[in-house]
Amino acid sequence: MIIDKVTTPIKVGVLGFGGLGQAAARVLAPKGEMTWVAAADQKGYAYSPEGLDVDRAIQTHRDRHSVGYLETYGTLSNNSISDLLTNSVVDGYFLALPNLPNTFMADVARQFIKSGWQGVLVDALKRTSAMEQLLDLQTELRQAGITYLTGCGATPGLLTAAAAVAAQSYAEIHSVKITFGVGIANWEAYRATIREDIAHMPEYDVETARAMSDEEVAALLDKTNGIISLENMEHADDIMLELAGICSRDRVTVGGVVDTRNPKKPLSTNVKITGRTFEGKISTHTFTLGDETSMAANVCGPAFGYLKAGVALNRRGMSGLFTAAEIMPQFVK
Amino acid sequence: MIIDKVTTPIKVGVLGFGGLGQAAARVLAPKGEMTWVAAADQKGYAYSPEGLDVDRAIQTHRDRHSVGYLETYGTLSNNSISDLLTNSVVDGYFLALPNLPNTFMADVARQFIKSGWQGVLVDALKRTSAMEQLLDLQTELRQAGITYLTGCGATPGLLTAAAAVAAQSYAEIHSVKITFGVGIANWEAYRATIREDIAHMPEYDVETARAMSDEEVAALLDKTNGIISLENMEHADDIMLELAGICSRDRVTVGGVVDTRNPKKPLSTNVKITGRTFEGKISTHTFTLGDETSMAANVCGPAFGYLKAGVALNRRGMSGLFTAAEIMPQFVK
Repeated sequence: MIIDKVTTPIKVGVLGFGGLGQAAARVLAPKGEMTWVAAADQKGYAYSPEGLDVDRAIQTHRDRHSVGYLETYGTLSNNSISDLLTNSVVDGYFLALPNLPNTFMADVARQFIKSGWQGVLVDALKRTSAMEQLLDLQTELRQAGITYLTGCGATPGLLTAAAAVAAQSYAEIHSVKITFGVGIANWEAYRATIREDIAHMPEYDVETARAMSDEEVAALLDKTNGIISLENMEHADDIMLELAGICSRDRVTVGGVVDTRNPKKPLSTNVKITGRTFEGKISTHTFTLGDETSMAANVCGPAFGYLKAGVALNRRGMSGLFTAAEIMPQFVK
Repeated sequence: MIIDKVTTPIKVGVLGFGGLGQAAARVLAPKGEMTWVAAADQKGYAYSPEGLDVDRAIQTHRDRHSVGYLETYGTLSNNSISDLLTNSVVDGYFLALPNLPNTFMADVARQFIKSGWQGVLVDALKRTSAMEQLLDLQTELRQAGITYLTGCGATPGLLTAAAAVAAQSYAEIHSVKITFGVGIANWEAYRATIREDIAHMPEYDVETARAMSDEEVAALLDKTNGIISLENMEHADDIMLELAGICSRDRVTVGGVVDTRNPKKPLSTNVKITGRTFEGKISTHTFTLGDETSMAANVCGPAFGYLKAGVALNRRGMSGLFTAAEIMPQFVK
């Protein structure tokens, strides 16, 4: 068994405390196999070895824009990540950070490498170019004793893993087509994520989207009736499936529709894996997510499933960089 | 990366040379990362370190009922498995053996343990009770240096792995429901598999199904118009998902319809994973296999994907028993 009995809960930190980081804390709260002990944002961090209170942390962040203001457990800091690393005992971190600029996740990884901290890191980054920067850090991560799992959200992540499983029926993979539908009632709860989506639209890029004010985002969404339609997105599912030897990256396409004014999904998120079997038949397997599952559930659930798998690898001395397409996530109770 | 570059092809043996074993050899034949070097059946074995010729092996078995008659490479033997083990160099075996009697797979595993052979074993067994016998061998397998991956066919296997991935979106899993459709033009090519299916029918068990003559099977199928309908089958998907901590085994159900007179599937094989998200929403993810994919493709493809993953584990010193729900299979080119 690679699945260890979790006798002592895994101590988990969440870096970034926007919409995704807060959802991650809510996902963690009821789990017995993990304890949410740390959070950090741009202005501070919070740490309690016994576990943090989700409602209080979210309320504090809402009121004062940093978990550093959290009573008893909060500390204000302009170097929140490195200060947290110095002052805490954490088994693994979920990097719930928007990757803006596009080099940010790799910079954070470098900070961890430098610090001498050993443990598990999990990201849910999206762009191929961001993952390529992490690939450059493979050796350093391994030498540092860090087990880094990348692309562990929904897509890349859940859908990439499903594609890696589905591919097994085929002798050759012709295409992997990911189509996502996201419905959110209120885009302002996911400011960074929405800007990442806008950055994929024609005439926008990561920098221009990042520079948009809330008013400019609202004006853009007014023009599109709240809908963001995306095709041929730069998504790291492509490089992950290529690295896993499943198909060349040009056979992987990602597109989707985000409705920023309706929690109902505009379409069911799915991945279609088309290939040729050993007998020469062409066919397509399909993995479809239930419409009632939110982006937060489909990102944070897998992220912690990979974090648990990462802890098992780390304890066996396996450090370095891994993708969601090569490791089976482990269910966290 | 856990996925190693395969520089020297993995030397693979296939034990059992009925319908499944022959399909396995055909799946292997075009692969560059694996070489099919060995096969064994009840009356003999064949071995060539350079690789065996699939067409000749199948023709020989068809004409003379054993690969032991294969020109140059065949050897007749009443202890074909242990004789093959003594006289060959093989990295991993696919146990394409019908598990009849129900203790057979565990007996074969014991034979491997006793022999001193170290490497990777993969089975595609179906029954929970058969897998329980293997669980009893966990420590012995680990000590022997054998990496044994169990339940690595279609169901259990491909669909169990898809369920393990899908479960990640949920805080709690309510049900995993596997429904398979199988269409085969000619049941006589899968005599053992069909008897295993019949054994799941009411009023039959493993022993009575095994004892049936071909005429009795044909007579039964005449009565049902060639259709075998199965509900609440004893399938090891249940114990695999329980061991992976995903849900208790009683929440996993397996049923299906086998049409023994039509290669078209009577329904699309699928697995539905229903659970509750952290926000309290109930939803269902669905993984559906393309109708054009055969049982042979959906069993043998995953089996070799797990064998490749098993070789990576074995080379890292990880031996013992693993299930398809805890390891990500690796695509074999």
